[in-house]
Amino acid sequence: MASQLEGAASQTRAARQKMWTRERLIEAARRVIARQGIDATTIADITSAADVGIGSFYNHFKSKEDLVGTLVGQAIELHGASLDRLVASVSDPAEVFAICIRHTIRMADHDPVWAWFTVRAGLYVRELESALGERVMRDLLRGIESGRFTPRDMPSALIVIGGAMVAAMQGRLLGVLGAPADHLIAEHLLRMLGVPADEAQRIASLPLGEAVAEDAQPSARGGAR
Amino acid sequence: MASQLEGAASQTRAARQKMWTRERLIEAARRVIARQGIDATTIADITSAADVGIGSFYNHFKSKEDLVGTLVGQAIELHGASLDRLVASVSDPAEVFAICIRHTIRMADHDPVWAWFTVRAGLYVRELESALGERVMRDLLRGIESGRFTPRDMPSALIVIGGAMVAAMQGRLLGVLGAPADHLIAEHLLRMLGVPADEAQRIASLPLGEAVAEDAQPSARGGAR
Repeated sequence: MASQLEGAASQTRAARQKMWTRERLIEAARRVIARQGIDATTIADITSAADVGIGSFYNHFKSKEDLVGTLVGQAIELHGASLDRLVASVSDPAEVFAICIRHTIRMADHDPVWAWFTVRAGLYVRELESALGERVMRDLLRGIESGRFTPRDMPSALIVIGGAMVAAMQGRLLGVLGAPADHLIAEHLLRMLGVPADEAQRIASLPLGEAVAEDAQPSARGGAR
Repeated sequence: MASQLEGAASQTRAARQKMWTRERLIEAARRVIARQGIDATTIADITSAADVGIGSFYNHFKSKEDLVGTLVGQAIELHGASLDRLVASVSDPAEVFAICIRHTIRMADHDPVWAWFTVRAGLYVRELESALGERVMRDLLRGIESGRFTPRDMPSALIVIGGAMVAAMQGRLLGVLGAPADHLIAEHLLRMLGVPADEAQRIASLPLGEAVAEDAQPSARGGAR
C-alpha cells in the first residue's frame, strides 16, 4: 500500500518534472530566438539556454519548427486574449479594429521581446498568420456587417493589414520610427477599408487605455493559457 | 620599356582579377542568402560558394553586413531602373504607383530568388528601406501634387505600402496565396491614399506589361549598373 502511494507520488513528480522541462524549453527558445532569429538558432542553443540535456528536447518536441509553432501560438493567444478584454465594451467595429491595430503595434514599446519574436517568426511560421489572421478577419467581418467597412476583397486586405503591423513594429524596433506611429497606421488602414478620411482620423486618435501592459503580468498570462 | 608595359598589363590583370573576385562574392552571397537567410549565412559559406579563399573576402568587404548592403542596393537599383523604363510614358501618378506596386509584388513569381532575398533582407537592412522608400516617396509626392493622393502623413503611409508589398511577396513565396493578388493589393493602397473606390478598382486592374521580365536579362542588368 505504502509503495503504491509512493509510486503514484513519483509518477506525479515525474509528470510535474516533464511539464516543467517543457516550459523551460519554451521560455529559453523565446529568449534565444528573439535575440538571434529563428534561422540562426539551433536545438543545442535552446537546450543550453534552458540548462537541460539536448536529448530531452525530443521528449517534448518533434523539431525546432514544432517548438516555434507552439511558441508563436502561445504568444499570439496571450496577446489576443488581452485585446479581447480591452475591446469588450466597445461597440463600433471601426473603433475595435483601430484599438487592436494600435495596441499590437505598441507591443514594440511595451514588450520588445514579444515584438521581435513576432516580427522574426512572421517570416517563416504560418501559425502567426492563422492566429492573428483569424482575429483580424473576425473584426473585418463585423465592420462589413455593420456597413463600416467596404473592402472589395478580404484575404488581400488581411495581407496589407498584417504587413503594415509587422513593418510598423519593425520600424520602431530598429529605431527608424521616432514614435510608435500606431494611430497614423490605424488611420491609413481605416481609410483603406472605406471609412471617410475625417472619421478615420477621429477614430484612430481616440485615447488608448494602457491595459495591454497586463500582458507582462503573471495573472494575465495565467488567464490566457 | 618592355618590362614597364608588362608591369602595366599585370596591374590591369590584377585589377580585373580583383573586380572579378568581388563579383563572384556578391553573386555567391545572393544565392546563399536567398537559400538560408542572412542570420544563418557565414562569411565562410559565402567564400566557399564563390570558391575563393576566406581571407580574400576582407579585401573587398568590411563585414557580412557591408556585403549585404551592397547586394541589396544593387538588387533594388536594378529593379527600380526597370520600373522607371516601364512607367516612362505613363502620366497619371496613380497609374504609375499601381504599376510599380504590382510589378514589385510579381517579382515573387518572375524572380523568386530576388523576392526571397528582398523579403529576408528587409528585416535587417536599412538600404532596402531607403532605396525602395525613396522611389515610393517620389511617386507619392507626384500623386499629392496632382491632387490624386491625399494621405495625412507620408512616412507612415510608406510603412503600410512597404509592409504590404513584403507581405504579399512572402504570401506568394510561401504558397499561402494561390495567385499573386498584386492588383488587389494595389487597389487597397490606392483607396488608402484617397482614390475613390471605383477609380481605384479600374486603375489597379489595367493590363500589366511583361517588360519587368527583362530584369533577368544581361542587357537590362548591365544598363542598370
